[in-house]
Amino acid sequence: MLLAATIMVCGVLPLSAAEITLKLAHSWPKGFPIFATSVDEYAELVSEMSDGRIEIKVDSRNKHKSAFGIFDFVKSGQYDIGQSASYYYGGKDPDTLFFTTMPFGMTALEQYAWFHEGGGLELANQVYDKHGIEVMTGGNTTMQMGGWFNKEINSVDDLKGLKMRIPGFGGKVMAGVGAVPTNIPAGELYQALERGTIDALEWVGPSLDLRMGFHKIASYYYTGWHEPGTELMYFFNKETMQELPEWARSVLLNAAKLTSFNMTVQSQHESAVNWESMLTEFPNIEVRDFPEEVIEALRQSNRALLAQEASRSELSKKIIQSQSSYLTLVRGWTNIGDRAYLNNIAGQ
Amino acid sequence: MLLAATIMVCGVLPLSAAEITLKLAHSWPKGFPIFATSVDEYAELVSEMSDGRIEIKVDSRNKHKSAFGIFDFVKSGQYDIGQSASYYYGGKDPDTLFFTTMPFGMTALEQYAWFHEGGGLELANQVYDKHGIEVMTGGNTTMQMGGWFNKEINSVDDLKGLKMRIPGFGGKVMAGVGAVPTNIPAGELYQALERGTIDALEWVGPSLDLRMGFHKIASYYYTGWHEPGTELMYFFNKETMQELPEWARSVLLNAAKLTSFNMTVQSQHESAVNWESMLTEFPNIEVRDFPEEVIEALRQSNRALLAQEASRSELSKKIIQSQSSYLTLVRGWTNIGDRAYLNNIAGQ
Repeated sequence: MLLAATIMVCGVLPLSAAEITLKLAHSWPKGFPIFATSVDEYAELVSEMSDGRIEIKVDSRNKHKSAFGIFDFVKSGQYDIGQSASYYYGGKDPDTLFFTTMPFGMTALEQYAWFHEGGGLELANQVYDKHGIEVMTGGNTTMQMGGWFNKEINSVDDLKGLKMRIPGFGGKVMAGVGAVPTNIPAGELYQALERGTIDALEWVGPSLDLRMGFHKIASYYYTGWHEPGTELMYFFNKETMQELPEWARSVLLNAAKLTSFNMTVQSQHESAVNWESMLTEFPNIEVRDFPEEVIEALRQSNRALLAQEASRSELSKKIIQSQSSYLTLVRGWTNIGDRAYLNNIAGQ
Repeated sequence: MLLAATIMVCGVLPLSAAEITLKLAHSWPKGFPIFATSVDEYAELVSEMSDGRIEIKVDSRNKHKSAFGIFDFVKSGQYDIGQSASYYYGGKDPDTLFFTTMPFGMTALEQYAWFHEGGGLELANQVYDKHGIEVMTGGNTTMQMGGWFNKEINSVDDLKGLKMRIPGFGGKVMAGVGAVPTNIPAGELYQALERGTIDALEWVGPSLDLRMGFHKIASYYYTGWHEPGTELMYFFNKETMQELPEWARSVLLNAAKLTSFNMTVQSQHESAVNWESMLTEFPNIEVRDFPEEVIEALRQSNRALLAQEASRSELSKKIIQSQSSYLTLVRGWTNIGDRAYLNNIAGQ
């Protein structure tokens, strides 16, 4: 190691040592586990790695009061940085819907390969560039479960008329087979399921389901199909980024990428720990896979939806084709890699 | 955004702008895909994020001539940083063997959860601290394949006397069921397999096997069991690290962690792309799973080996117990998460 005194500092330091101060807004309640705490960790990481030269002030939705306003906040420059889920902003631009997770799509690690090596992030930036926003991956929940059901699903008929809290593409696919998707605020979900206002709901997976308590009132926990790797996203105001020196841009983007990895690893850990807790408390939770007939019907419904989306514009078609061909490519590897391994040694 | 001019610079800049110059040695030939290129990317990332304040000079094994000398280089302070695989250094300290990958062990993402959330990295640092080294994860190959075989393996008897290039724990487990593990330099492997000097070999997986050409001469490609998520490692000389300011330590460690994630994602991508290339060139490659009887025999052999390792010292016992209990915890989640998903929707 060689330490060279290269810069003589003179002059008076101002009250704050930061050269660059940025404002960040995220979609979650202050301190919300994993989703919000990972943003707090991002701000600390940026401060630490920049030797205090960059300071990020984090506002939760408790402060800015607009969980789904992040896109507009960053677009307008009211905030320099945002962290949220891309698929919340389909109303602003329908092409934002593709950059979180897709039914029957890629798992977390498969999708990271698409984002970072398969052109996915470039496509996301092509969409967001029009809105003056630059994006970076923001952290994955890992596999989301199919949800909590108060009855067993043995056939497509069992889905007909089923009232289920399931938003986004997943909800549309469910509607395509006759279910009735609804959205209900998080705070009212438990009661809605308990009182039979809804027959089923999906939330996340063990990492965040445990604290909601659904396992105390629903008998069946179905395995996943609709959100196989839900990725949050960091938004950066493009003008802000263009004014910053290269090193600061690099710290902001790379710290976001590292934070996304850290959050994914945290989700993996919390899912494992919380799944064990659920089973310890309620050993009679019944894990179920949807029968083949149901999976096939949902897949057909999904295909119809994607065909419709692809016909919307050249760009939507290009994104769907990119995801579809990358999924085929990477799943070929997953099937002889992780999947074969997990199945072969399962008897342990 | 707020840009404040906080520091007045005066005095003369030296020839190099870097305040901190560090030397790094890695185990691979210069420019070796993924393994060595990811270290070059690490050095660039550190320089970029530190605004040129930290410079890392990278030496490949072409320069330092000692692929397996990285541990000693960093321990002695001849190099400040190293990148290599922990399990190469069992001769220096047998407890280093546990921090790369284990037969029948965790997959890449499961093992990252153990390292970063389950106490794995703390245990690794407990082992390396005795040698004046601090460690950080260094990048994963993702699932390693069981290897290339010139005959089909239908029973444990087919393994008896089988000459196979398979180093490390995997080799010991193979020896336990009657196979004859050997190690042969990389440059001679193709010929050895072609001429029947060996009956089988394992290398990595599609990401690095393609360029070796084994698929041209071996009929069977067996799925993995012995290295389910091979993680490289960054080594840092402890004294060097203690002399550095906090921000520089943070950049060095966090850039290593990010580089490990980037390499994992690259491995995932290259495996997918190269597996497709192999199949296009040689559509008759036969992918095989080892039969249950063989898996069970290998598992028993592995258990005996672990029991022996655990009896070696209090620390080896503690590490093996940590891995074993974390594997049980996280696999419970993987089984209802990714594994269930991949199996349920496989019919696409």
